[in-house]
Amino acid sequence: MSEITLGRYLFERLHQLKVDTIFGVPGDFNLSLLDKIYEIDGMRWAGNANELNAGYAADGYSRVKGMGAIVSTFGVGELSLTNAIAGSFAEHCAILNVVGVPSVNAQAKQLLLHHTLGNGDFTVFHRMFKNISHSSAFISDINSAPNEIDRCIRDAYVYQRPVYVGLPSNLVDLMVPSSLLETPIDLSLKPNDSDAQEEVIETVERLIKEAKNPVILVDACASRHSCKPEVAKLVDATQFPVFTTPMGKSGINESHPRFGGVYVGSLSRPDVKEAVESADLILSIGALLSDFNTGSFSYAYKTKNVVEFHSDYTKIRQATFPGVQMKEALQKLLQTVASSINPSYTPSPVPQQKLINSPAPPSTPLTQEYLWTKVSSWFREGDIIVTETGTSAFGIVQSRFPNNTIGISQVLWGSIGYTVGATCGAAMAGQEIDPNRRVILFVGDGSLQLTVQEISTMCRWNCNNTYLFVLNNDGYTIERLIHGENATYNDIQPWNNLQLLPLFNAKDYETKKISTVGELNDLFSDKAFAKPDKIRMVEVMLARMDAPANLVAQAKLSEKTNAESNL
Amino acid sequence: MSEITLGRYLFERLHQLKVDTIFGVPGDFNLSLLDKIYEIDGMRWAGNANELNAGYAADGYSRVKGMGAIVSTFGVGELSLTNAIAGSFAEHCAILNVVGVPSVNAQAKQLLLHHTLGNGDFTVFHRMFKNISHSSAFISDINSAPNEIDRCIRDAYVYQRPVYVGLPSNLVDLMVPSSLLETPIDLSLKPNDSDAQEEVIETVERLIKEAKNPVILVDACASRHSCKPEVAKLVDATQFPVFTTPMGKSGINESHPRFGGVYVGSLSRPDVKEAVESADLILSIGALLSDFNTGSFSYAYKTKNVVEFHSDYTKIRQATFPGVQMKEALQKLLQTVASSINPSYTPSPVPQQKLINSPAPPSTPLTQEYLWTKVSSWFREGDIIVTETGTSAFGIVQSRFPNNTIGISQVLWGSIGYTVGATCGAAMAGQEIDPNRRVILFVGDGSLQLTVQEISTMCRWNCNNTYLFVLNNDGYTIERLIHGENATYNDIQPWNNLQLLPLFNAKDYETKKISTVGELNDLFSDKAFAKPDKIRMVEVMLARMDAPANLVAQAKLSEKTNAESNL
Repeated sequence: MSEITLGRYLFERLHQLKVDTIFGVPGDFNLSLLDKIYEIDGMRWAGNANELNAGYAADGYSRVKGMGAIVSTFGVGELSLTNAIAGSFAEHCAILNVVGVPSVNAQAKQLLLHHTLGNGDFTVFHRMFKNISHSSAFISDINSAPNEIDRCIRDAYVYQRPVYVGLPSNLVDLMVPSSLLETPIDLSLKPNDSDAQEEVIETVERLIKEAKNPVILVDACASRHSCKPEVAKLVDATQFPVFTTPMGKSGINESHPRFGGVYVGSLSRPDVKEAVESADLILSIGALLSDFNTGSFSYAYKTKNVVEFHSDYTKIRQATFPGVQMKEALQKLLQTVASSINPSYTPSPVPQQKLINSPAPPSTPLTQEYLWTKVSSWFREGDIIVTETGTSAFGIVQSRFPNNTIGISQVLWGSIGYTVGATCGAAMAGQEIDPNRRVILFVGDGSLQLTVQEISTMCRWNCNNTYLFVLNNDGYTIERLIHGENATYNDIQPWNNLQLLPLFNAKDYETKKISTVGELNDLFSDKAFAKPDKIRMVEVMLARMDAPANLVAQAKLSEKTNAESNL
Repeated sequence: MSEITLGRYLFERLHQLKVDTIFGVPGDFNLSLLDKIYEIDGMRWAGNANELNAGYAADGYSRVKGMGAIVSTFGVGELSLTNAIAGSFAEHCAILNVVGVPSVNAQAKQLLLHHTLGNGDFTVFHRMFKNISHSSAFISDINSAPNEIDRCIRDAYVYQRPVYVGLPSNLVDLMVPSSLLETPIDLSLKPNDSDAQEEVIETVERLIKEAKNPVILVDACASRHSCKPEVAKLVDATQFPVFTTPMGKSGINESHPRFGGVYVGSLSRPDVKEAVESADLILSIGALLSDFNTGSFSYAYKTKNVVEFHSDYTKIRQATFPGVQMKEALQKLLQTVASSINPSYTPSPVPQQKLINSPAPPSTPLTQEYLWTKVSSWFREGDIIVTETGTSAFGIVQSRFPNNTIGISQVLWGSIGYTVGATCGAAMAGQEIDPNRRVILFVGDGSLQLTVQEISTMCRWNCNNTYLFVLNNDGYTIERLIHGENATYNDIQPWNNLQLLPLFNAKDYETKKISTVGELNDLFSDKAFAKPDKIRMVEVMLARMDAPANLVAQAKLSEKTNAESNL
């Protein structure tokens, strides 16, 4: 074939990047486009239950495979995605956000079509999305369309952000040269300015040489911008203690002898807090600062020697080096860093975490404390662990991840319900990379209700690699801790959650309800349960106000911030 | 009390307008605000399952009570509402869209809080909402706050559109004078310019005097802008035949002897088409033109004598009279219209619709044709009838509504899943105005999946006035008709829908599955079933490609519009 349709061109490009599941909901302005997915071997259309969930799923998929893609329809479809897209923007996830829009002809005539505001304005939704997208294209010309698509895919991938593409319904069947596919999209980063980079490396090496007690702090963007290998090498080469933030968790192998724990400012474990804050040099990699990621900005370094490596700049103390991107800079640093370490530097011991519960009779009611301590022993290499905003995202901080784990949690954006969609996306990505990798969700009974129907999509695709732990604590516990412990607005309608899988017609499934220490221990020692061969839901019954200690502390800080009115 | 909190002030104002249910989801930037709802007798917080559904519910509530209100939280909450708010904007529904935003202090410090994009931009979501709101306020000063709130409520009510209010978390507990509540918010329309109005009335009366065969055409805004009484009087005074559009349905008593049916351009019944298109004068009231409301703009009047009465202007033939609002203009016209009718005008018979099915054995499989013909006999005065975009919104066009019916259907915006949320809002509004009014939903099995969890909110509030008819035709039939009849993207995961009510812990409920003519007839002749004393779900099994004839025709027109590329 010397020519292919523009629609097929789009999906062939995504297929080249192993983006093989397309998320979304059909609508009459995207139906002809969706036909093209089925023309490509190895690609599939997820067919999500609604658009918001599809957006969350694409985000979860992106966190596993490096990029995700959604197709929605004009107006009604795309607007349901804004929350998900804003989350991907805030948290650096690559999403190609394709919207099937009315034909060029209908736009030119300003037809008062359904799915419009009824005022002839066809660019209003595109304008809204520009606020939460790295870049965008509203395609209207078949000749420039392939180039525009390539640019959008490149931007999404390289900058790890959502990019918006409006694709008129009449263009998707027009032909473009198939030879364009022979040249891969250039996904390389622009080289750093060599003078600026040299100055960065020299300064960092000088700081390293002078440091007696340096540490490395790994945050979210280290994973998102594919710098995990560089981080691992830096730790090996320097033997500096390495810590992560809550969002940075899984950015480093937590079994590494130099891993010291999770730093969250004043909410850290005391030994972790002491170790980080007494450092005389902090090498921060991929920081995404936010209140929940920093214990409400309670970082209290004693040193001014902080080096921040970011995806698009480097900062050393107060000096910013725009355009010095961390991946290249770290690779450069790795070439010489070993020789720049202070000869008198001796790697000091790092904080060690005991993950052993005090013995308790099997009938003891389960607590968050017990759960999050115990769960580490059940995790295994390769697990994809998804934790919802609430007790789960805070509880997971005290667990230890095995090597090669992917942790998914929306700590900055914090949209409740996110994880059910994200788990669907991660599970479908898991099916593609290795069906033995387990995808393990921890979600509260409140958050589950927002996006519950995406479990149906997991059933549809037989995502038998999925474990859904529903932490039932009778409502919105994180909010009860912030404000309104007994307010009915923090109550929810109680559901019979274990009826969900049969209602959604799951094929191979298992459900369990547990409420005691003994039941949890039995579950985690059951080898059959550990094998990802069916979709599983475990309802974990917990007391209403039981919460991880770090959440209790964070909630107090948040209520204070909300009420403060002194300017 | 000489002073009350600003939060309470807001809800007291809504309570004065009988907006007594507030929809939304709690979040940490709105919790202190929500406390105030509970201080006011007769108000309630719905506690929806997610924000999009809450937005749909507020829209449904608004269509029954004249105005709705939502409270969401900054970023994650409000963005999930954009689709619902855009729908309320397109279709003229009054919504006060209140967002709990971070404290003034946190904004001034540009704190990188959770629920932000992580870039210190606190106005980005407000900017996005301006595109789909009539007006807005981002409150930052306690002194002007009551006035700003009054202005926003007034705008929403008078213009019947969504209005955005950003309310910082620290302001809601500050005090304002309670005496402000003694002056009601002025909701009166600005008087029309008397010269312009006089010219309009004179011209319309001249056209009426000359007309031999005039008709009245009632559209959506007649209901939304509270002109139903004026429309009814105009029909009585003139005895002109009256028709509605699909969106205008329930704008006129369909038992009125002068009611002639639903006009949808070329998709109308032949006798209705002939009656409207042969008229020599069309008095159009509250038109909201869109493809699905006009049979893809296939209006084919023979006359140029069209008078359009709108909420904010009047148009006579090609002349526009800005600011001549229909309510006052119609009231003025009513004072003299009887005397201006052509003395030789004789009211001709209007088209009559037979709503009787051909006899069929009870075991005959049910069809859309049979259902939509039969259903009219089951409807009763006062029913609130909600029909989802798809076979339901098209099927309902061929039914006849009893007097005092409210029809709810999102024909212009057409967001699938809308009706499940809207039914929740309408049902809660129904509880407030008259618990004997039934709220009857017709929704497809595909659309149901997008917003299913809002049935839980109906269960929570014991909305025993609710009938949920789930038309199960195995996927997205409306889309199969437009494109991709056998494409798997138009398939859905099949659910065991009748397990939903027990899963959601409904207290008093009943479920039924019907698939034959006999089962439908039995159901509709069962007096116990007709009594709104429990929440009911009826799953109606229909053939996959069975659809109302007007939908089949519309789908063909839509596919053509989507594919056309000739400019």
